[in-house]
Amino acid sequence: MSIQVQLIDNPNGIADCPGFKTAGVAADIREKGDLELLDLALVTSEKPCYAAGVFTLNDVCAAPVHICKEILSHPGAKVAGFVVNSGNANAATAEQGMVDAKEMSAIAQLETGIGSPFLVCSTGRIGRKLPMGKIKSGIAAAAQLLSEDTQASLDTADAILTSDTRRKCASARFTYEGKTLTVSGIAKGAGMIEPNMATMLAFLATDLDVDSAALKNTLVQACNKTFNRISIDGDMSTNDTVLLLANGQSGLVPNDSPDLLQAFREAVYLVCDSLAEKIVGDGEKVTKLVELMVEGCQTEEDAEKVARCVGNSLLVKTSWYGSDPNWGRLADAAGYARIGLKEACFDIHYDDVPALIGGIPQDSKLAEWKAIVSKKRFRITLNLNQGSGTFRLLSTDLSEAYVNFNKSE
Amino acid sequence: MSIQVQLIDNPNGIADCPGFKTAGVAADIREKGDLELLDLALVTSEKPCYAAGVFTLNDVCAAPVHICKEILSHPGAKVAGFVVNSGNANAATAEQGMVDAKEMSAIAQLETGIGSPFLVCSTGRIGRKLPMGKIKSGIAAAAQLLSEDTQASLDTADAILTSDTRRKCASARFTYEGKTLTVSGIAKGAGMIEPNMATMLAFLATDLDVDSAALKNTLVQACNKTFNRISIDGDMSTNDTVLLLANGQSGLVPNDSPDLLQAFREAVYLVCDSLAEKIVGDGEKVTKLVELMVEGCQTEEDAEKVARCVGNSLLVKTSWYGSDPNWGRLADAAGYARIGLKEACFDIHYDDVPALIGGIPQDSKLAEWKAIVSKKRFRITLNLNQGSGTFRLLSTDLSEAYVNFNKSE
Repeated sequence: MSIQVQLIDNPNGIADCPGFKTAGVAADIREKGDLELLDLALVTSEKPCYAAGVFTLNDVCAAPVHICKEILSHPGAKVAGFVVNSGNANAATAEQGMVDAKEMSAIAQLETGIGSPFLVCSTGRIGRKLPMGKIKSGIAAAAQLLSEDTQASLDTADAILTSDTRRKCASARFTYEGKTLTVSGIAKGAGMIEPNMATMLAFLATDLDVDSAALKNTLVQACNKTFNRISIDGDMSTNDTVLLLANGQSGLVPNDSPDLLQAFREAVYLVCDSLAEKIVGDGEKVTKLVELMVEGCQTEEDAEKVARCVGNSLLVKTSWYGSDPNWGRLADAAGYARIGLKEACFDIHYDDVPALIGGIPQDSKLAEWKAIVSKKRFRITLNLNQGSGTFRLLSTDLSEAYVNFNKSE
Repeated sequence: MSIQVQLIDNPNGIADCPGFKTAGVAADIREKGDLELLDLALVTSEKPCYAAGVFTLNDVCAAPVHICKEILSHPGAKVAGFVVNSGNANAATAEQGMVDAKEMSAIAQLETGIGSPFLVCSTGRIGRKLPMGKIKSGIAAAAQLLSEDTQASLDTADAILTSDTRRKCASARFTYEGKTLTVSGIAKGAGMIEPNMATMLAFLATDLDVDSAALKNTLVQACNKTFNRISIDGDMSTNDTVLLLANGQSGLVPNDSPDLLQAFREAVYLVCDSLAEKIVGDGEKVTKLVELMVEGCQTEEDAEKVARCVGNSLLVKTSWYGSDPNWGRLADAAGYARIGLKEACFDIHYDDVPALIGGIPQDSKLAEWKAIVSKKRFRITLNLNQGSGTFRLLSTDLSEAYVNFNKSE
């Protein structure tokens, strides 16, 4: 039996999934007296949830990441929901940071009156102490506003953003035996987007009745195919977190139904894929989105190395920005992946137009390359013709505006 | 016995070393009709030379690199000198590139009438066929102009440059048993300067009487400590080459004198170090030079990983450009080297001013950090306090002008 899983048009964030309440408030976490900027999000489930998380691999790991890992390390643990602030990463804040992250979680529990623990996330500038007075009054205000309303859900999606220019929501839904199952999600991205989800947060909610182990397995598989295959500037953050909460409210239990579990996995994948594409398309001062397809490597690992060398090369990224079909820089960057590329076997295409075939430049196509690289989105395929390993990476150009934007905070 | 080895003030390039003739001419290699821009260099030795080379590790390796490796692969082989063009890399040019590079070497032999082979190097745009007519007339003109003059030597140093803004020469000299020994050198750099000498060429000449094996050993050691420890944009080129030629004219033979060999090694190191510093200081649109010292790692390899992550991070480099003492980005990049950094042991200093001690921010020093990061050159020390492995990397900031400069060729 095949179940049809589809993304929802006009997703509205977490509240697309029944049984979750949300709130987003302005708490002045940046301590600049801005009382309009939404920067604190609170999400609760009507019933305690199973949850799973995927986190940054950075050795320098923010305090809230440690707290989430600790909460999720207890098998069978259930959570009440999660609380998130933007504007301050609570990273590189030593012991005080751990105390503050734990307190942030405890305040959420206290203010909502829910007995289960809250997962906690922070994003923003590294190395500054969290303003705990503002965190506390923000959580108190959010707890009063918790609702299943669409507007509250959109405010929540807004409150987790930093230098993003657009809200990022995606939801998928399907029906099974007359019941509806939903996976809803929100994310933030902008800079530092590289291997393993740098400076990104994503929160997914579902009403499937499923345990932590299956959740974790599903989330890891989806992340590996989506959030871990996008790159903006090659920097990996200290705070990356993807959470998936399941409250069971749909009454659907996948235990005896491989089809249902498969459909759920597809829904989680679709939501992650849509959020990942929205993150990379909204990268800091990005003007172009480039889909890098590396094919014909001996292994997928080799293909990934080539894709990351090319997708992170400053000379490649600046040439994209300038609409310059400089395939020589692609070949150079592919070569320094050092996986044994043989020039005489190497093909490069811009969209479907050849630039290099078996190592030989196809110079007569110059005008066509130029037209393709001048588009807002295009595809580059590098085929090493040495095996069947492939890797797809969504990358971006690098603009002068990126440098200007990041030269100070 | 200690021999005093010193860099020469006002070095004049290859001709600082007796027994070498040089010429630099305008050959219009870029095919833009510019008859003033020096772009072809020819260097010969009065006597055939032993020679050694160190080359790019890129899988995509330019044709002239293959030719040099082939010439130097014969034990005991002697060379006549070398011929270099700028403006065209003769890389990713398939079989035609190999034919052209061999012909370039053969033309030099023909036009100079010297029986030994010429080493050959190219630098410039990747993926374009060498203009062999212009190469041929350029070499013919250069062969007529070969001399020991200072001006010819300076013209030679100029002819190898691409986007460099300054000529790069360094020479060292010492006396031993009443005889003088010289090591002279020239280099080009500018962009693509990263591990293993990306887009750089350097040519060294000496009048020591020494065999290829000792030359190679000396050159590899010097390169590892100098050219392989600078980084501008993290891109490794297809053409990197460092050559060292020895004509024996000083009459000094190191065979039975460890002191003499040691002094020679020191001279080669000093020349390479001076040229490396000139390359990084003249990086494309660089406004700041940053000496990154990584200390206290379990191994030197770990320290190198940390140094390269930090020194190549776009977010770190842009913050330097903006004179922003954003040590949080340093900690973040150090963490994603993933060598097991322990935050509670981690110290960061700007020059001698602490930013982080044992993982605790030293916020009271903010004004001092800011003053240091605003300088044209400063030092950052990252001490992981987990061992005795260290690594020093000379890095640069990343400016909007870099992006603008590289967005098209």
